[in-house]
This record gives sequence, C-alpha cells and structure tokens, in this order.
Amino acid sequence: MSVAQEFEAANAKYAGGFTKGSLPLPPARKVAVVACMDARLDTARALGLEEGDAHVIRNAGGRVTDALRSIVISQQLLGTREIVIVHHTDCGMLTFSDETIRGKIKSDLKQNADHIAFLPFNDLKQSVIDDIQILKDSPLVLDVPITGYLYEVETGKIVKVGSS
Amino acid sequence: MSVAQEFEAANAKYAGGFTKGSLPLPPARKVAVVACMDARLDTARALGLEEGDAHVIRNAGGRVTDALRSIVISQQLLGTREIVIVHHTDCGMLTFSDETIRGKIKSDLKQNADHIAFLPFNDLKQSVIDDIQILKDSPLVLDVPITGYLYEVETGKIVKVGSS
Repeated sequence: MSVAQEFEAANAKYAGGFTKGSLPLPPARKVAVVACMDARLDTARALGLEEGDAHVIRNAGGRVTDALRSIVISQQLLGTREIVIVHHTDCGMLTFSDETIRGKIKSDLKQNADHIAFLPFNDLKQSVIDDIQILKDSPLVLDVPITGYLYEVETGKIVKVGSS
Repeated sequence: MSVAQEFEAANAKYAGGFTKGSLPLPPARKVAVVACMDARLDTARALGLEEGDAHVIRNAGGRVTDALRSIVISQQLLGTREIVIVHHTDCGMLTFSDETIRGKIKSDLKQNADHIAFLPFNDLKQSVIDDIQILKDSPLVLDVPITGYLYEVETGKIVKVGSS
C-alpha cells in the first residue's frame, strides 16, 4: 500500500468527525508561520493551532527567502499581520553545502543544479536572526511583528531566538 | 498579547507531555507532502501524520514550482520516495492574477513585483494535474509515485485528482 492510500484511510476517519466546514478563508489569528518541513515538527500541535488559525508556510530549513511569494500573498490578500519563524535543532540544513548537494546531483542524476540556492546554514540561531533581518529589509514585506524560535526536537520546546 | 506569546503558552503544554524526543531525522514514512499554506488545512490531522512521519512542504497554493528546492533536499539527502500534493477548495489562489497582485503592490507599497510569479490558478483540479506533470518532467526529481488530492475545506475530505 502506498503512503497516499494510508492517507486516504486516515482522512476518512478525520472527515467522519469533521465539524469545521464553515471557516472563512483569511486566518483567524492573522499570523503566518514560516517553519522547516522537518518530519518531527508538527506545527499545529507544537504551537496550539486549530483549523482556520494561521497560514503555515514550510520548506527545507524554514527559510524566508523561499517563502517570500507566500508571505506577500498572505499579507496583501489575506490580511495576516504577524510572522513567526520556526527553525529547529538537528536540522538537515546543517549537514551539507551548496557544493555537496550540487555534486551529488551531478554524480547521481547527471544534472546541473548550479542555478539553485539550497539555502543551507551552519549556525542555527544565526539562521533565525538572518531570516528575521531578511524580512525586515524586504520592501515587499509589511512592517509587522516578527518572532523567531528554535524548536527543540529533543524536548518539544520552542526557544525564542529573536524578534523585531 | 502577540500571537507569538500565545504560541509560547500553547507550546509549554505540548512540551510538558512530549514523548517523541528520539526520532531520527529522515522521515519514517519516506514521503514528502506538498500542500497549500491555507489556515483551514491541518495536514497532520487530515492525513494522519505523527511526528517523524513525513516532510511537510507548504506554500501559497501548494505549488510544486515553489517547492522544488525542498523536494530535491528531501529526496537526495533524506530519502523520501513518494510525493503527495494537496490543493483545496475555496483556495485564495483562485481569486487573483499576477496582474492584480502586482498592481496592488505597486499601489499600496510603491514597489515593483513584476519579477515574482505568484502562481495563481483558475481551475483547481487542473492545478493539481499540472503540478504532478511539472514534477514528472523535472530532471531533478526522482521517478517516484506522485498522488494529487483536493482537500475539501467544507467536509474535511481529500478527493484524489490524479497520480503518476
């Protein structure tokens, strides 16, 4: 059985008890979360999100550079007015460089990925601070409160790293 | 109180009952989910995901073009071998065009966003089919099973639209 089929079975249970069919499109808590795609981070459970509460933007590393299109849509069309960034301990982005992944792609896939910035980092706290600053410096992002956290995959805790 | 502070309070409860502190970095179910950032979609609850199961990549519309960096990292460095795409009914991406959002940014922010492809669509099912095809055509993406769904925000159900 594919994982997709397992998702269908799990979803039948979820939909069977579903009571949230009339929520509006704009997020109720007017916040956009930018978090890493890491499997160990369940953004809803870890932050106390219910359906309808928040935009959740996730990518490798939780990098804001790769989230800019979504943040602009979130703010300009759907009214969010706060941003929360969540990176985490033991992140895969600490384990490689642009050179190593480009080399692997060249060797394994026979493809050139030199045009892709994979956005790895070697300092977790700095990656959060950098991403707050990138948003503050972007003329396309509104001047809203931004808070950055590190999620500890070992403890389930978020630890505040910085804010604007 | 900022939403970030509310997140800290909710997280203290989550961390207080946390028992999953020794999960490995690679996703246990070897799957990457690409879903819309929409507030009404809780990917973990709707698909039956537990901490450690799956990479969750989310952006405005759940568009794969904007998820390519993350998918390549997920496959090349963390071993995922299946992709599930989830778009949804009543999506904000149906409500605008590149021209309208660029015009709003020009008018409200006095900025030029002509260089950003915001990736809106006007046909929900087609957007899923298009995204499956984009992944199949990408030389940077492995030939793995890809399944695309529409999540119904009205019912909580996922409806299969296509697969590769």
